Amino acid sequence: MTNPAYVAVDWGTSSFRLWLIARDGSVLAERRSGEGMTSAAKTGFSQVLAAHLAAVEAPENLPVIVCGMAGARQGWIEAGYIDVPAPLTSILTAAVSVPGESRDIRILPGLAQRDSATPDVMRGEETQLLGALGTASAGAQAVCMPGTHSKWVHVKDSKVTGFSTFMTGELFDVITKHTILSHAVAGAGEQPADTETFEAAVSAAFQRPALASNLLFTARSGQLLHGISAAAAQARLSGTLIGLEIAGALQDAANSDITLIASGRLQAVYEQAFRTLALPFTAIDADAAVRRGLSAAAEAIWPN
Amino acid sequence: MTNPAYVAVDWGTSSFRLWLIARDGSVLAERRSGEGMTSAAKTGFSQVLAAHLAAVEAPENLPVIVCGMAGARQGWIEAGYIDVPAPLTSILTAAVSVPGESRDIRILPGLAQRDSATPDVMRGEETQLLGALGTASAGAQAVCMPGTHSKWVHVKDSKVTGFSTFMTGELFDVITKHTILSHAVAGAGEQPADTETFEAAVSAAFQRPALASNLLFTARSGQLLHGISAAAAQARLSGTLIGLEIAGALQDAANSDITLIASGRLQAVYEQAFRTLALPFTAIDADAAVRRGLSAAAEAIWPN
Repeated sequence: MTNPAYVAVDWGTSSFRLWLIARDGSVLAERRSGEGMTSAAKTGFSQVLAAHLAAVEAPENLPVIVCGMAGARQGWIEAGYIDVPAPLTSILTAAVSVPGESRDIRILPGLAQRDSATPDVMRGEETQLLGALGTASAGAQAVCMPGTHSKWVHVKDSKVTGFSTFMTGELFDVITKHTILSHAVAGAGEQPADTETFEAAVSAAFQRPALASNLLFTARSGQLLHGISAAAAQARLSGTLIGLEIAGALQDAANSDITLIASGRLQAVYEQAFRTLALPFTAIDADAAVRRGLSAAAEAIWPN
Repeated sequence: MTNPAYVAVDWGTSSFRLWLIARDGSVLAERRSGEGMTSAAKTGFSQVLAAHLAAVEAPENLPVIVCGMAGARQGWIEAGYIDVPAPLTSILTAAVSVPGESRDIRILPGLAQRDSATPDVMRGEETQLLGALGTASAGAQAVCMPGTHSKWVHVKDSKVTGFSTFMTGELFDVITKHTILSHAVAGAGEQPADTETFEAAVSAAFQRPALASNLLFTARSGQLLHGISAAAAQARLSGTLIGLEIAGALQDAANSDITLIASGRLQAVYEQAFRTLALPFTAIDADAAVRRGLSAAAEAIWPN
């Protein structure tokens, strides 16, 4: 087996992912678990990491590079924020060492948008971003990282100029679970997805974002008056929230190249939304991106 | 005591209000309770009404006019919908009689917007509207009835041309209770309201409605980066949702006269929002409006 060079860890709020990586960047072993920050804050970050390192038989002196919520104030050790505007690579020189550990463990900082009418923060996405765009990207990019809290980052010539969080995923979740619209979507999971309704909803919200909270209600009124299916109601909610997000994110960035960093179902849904709006985009796998970003950091911190 | 001429009932989803009214429109007695449709559907509409009628000593032959959710499919007896566009007065001739009752009980219909990209329904607000504007209003009006599901009705020369429901109140409720922002607003109730932040949030969302789900998130990021108070976080959420609502409602009605039909705290909050946006408006008390609408119906159905 090729010798491992370092361990890369993406430690989010509710998920933990670890890769054992060789000097050439190839993955020698991988671990995934639900021991995110919330869970590890109770059981101990050091213990959680040690167990996974043992499971992949990581040598004792092998260094570990970490990104994500492990660096939050309520995480393992606070890794602070780099204030934007800042170069994509600025995180490489600002990793924080975890004290009292036998091996070299570094946690990457997040990004903060402090002096803005829309203050914002991210942790983990900055590493994905570096992995996706590389250290030398040219032109204006709008990078979409969809999820519970979607992040849109504006990058110009390798510099992060600003970013915005949209609560799309979490709003969809609470609206379908806790509002009157929960009745409208009941049973949607057993029906085939309604692509046509999704696309119409994306377009409607993108064109008329001010109507968002009215467009959401049509999931119910459409069912009362026109008997639309639960799947159609769900597609309206999802499409409305995603159309609203894209309208807001591109409001001041209409001429940017769009990069989508996502995986699985979310990737498919956002690709469909971009195609509906005739917005060209480049898709990059989110898992590969965060791993490449962690590798870039490891290579900068522990050069050959 | 003046003789009662009829009984007026506003029977909503979660509230019941009854007035004993004289021929000249004066209120002789009043009852309020939480026995709305949801509760009465279990205990029996007839029994609930009979108990309140007995409490105000209503004569046995006194007729009763009802508006609201008692006329829904899941209510007492379905009173259908009048399709818009329709004159404000169209509800007066479409009340449905409740069969099997010893006295004359009529339930007013709701309004439906059927052939529209944004289908919509209302029950109860159509009666408020008639009471607020009267049977002969002139010019273009945008009528705002704020609440869990805010209704905005567009009226031109006494005719309802269209209307929209905005989920403002319910979204505020689930966002402050069930999302990550619940932490940001914890304890806001013990702090004085942050008027300045509310006004800034109303303006920001009105001007840039596409950013709504990002502006909501700044309640959290503002707390992380700038230590804003729970009251300020709550004001951001409330102001963002109300600013978004007003932007959507006036998108195609910029030149309409605004009428606000509301009471109590909601009235104060929306008045503040309209003043912030320099939008002139006329305020009408919601309770008085629905009572006047019910009286107009009673007088049309049971003339002197």
